[in-house]
Amino acid sequence: MDYSHLFKKLELVPTIVQDAKTKDVLMLAYMNEESFNLSLSTGYTHFYSRSRKQIWKKGETSGHVQKIIEIYADCDDDTLLVFVEQTGVACHTGAMSCFFNKIK
Amino acid sequence: MDYSHLFKKLELVPTIVQDAKTKDVLMLAYMNEESFNLSLSTGYTHFYSRSRKQIWKKGETSGHVQKIIEIYADCDDDTLLVFVEQTGVACHTGAMSCFFNKIK
Repeated sequence: MDYSHLFKKLELVPTIVQDAKTKDVLMLAYMNEESFNLSLSTGYTHFYSRSRKQIWKKGETSGHVQKIIEIYADCDDDTLLVFVEQTGVACHTGAMSCFFNKIK
Repeated sequence: MDYSHLFKKLELVPTIVQDAKTKDVLMLAYMNEESFNLSLSTGYTHFYSRSRKQIWKKGETSGHVQKIIEIYADCDDDTLLVFVEQTGVACHTGAMSCFFNKIK
């Protein structure tokens, strides 16, 4: 299958990562076409780092990899939602999820 | 509280909307500072439309409003996660969630 249309509107597509078991939202990162294809072919999440300007495999150094269970695109094909089996924790701070700063 | 720091890095902050009861991810939209403040002051989600270049209240025409239960920022303050009580459906297609296009 060709999914290049997903990267026509936006080169970097915001990708929500959700824990397949708990349904907690773990993080949001960005995929470009190359990292998306790597995610599909390897079965593990890969993203594009806007600050480092390179592809990274989630957990490459920490071991906190994310095995992909399901991937969905949204109704207008400009956001991705990936259900994963998280090894360890998702956040670089050591928290399970990146969303721990409560505003309201 | 002043949350202007959230909009320093990115003027438009990707905002994940999650159903507070089912934990389904309903949609992703973008907030600028004005729509964020409107969301806080009214208790209902408001976003910034990149195509229409204006603030919109979710459900303003459809009635499918989103009452805000909780708001979180992520670890590096460049993504928001909002738990809502959804009236009706979240997607303009009539689907409960915008994420119904299964890729894998």
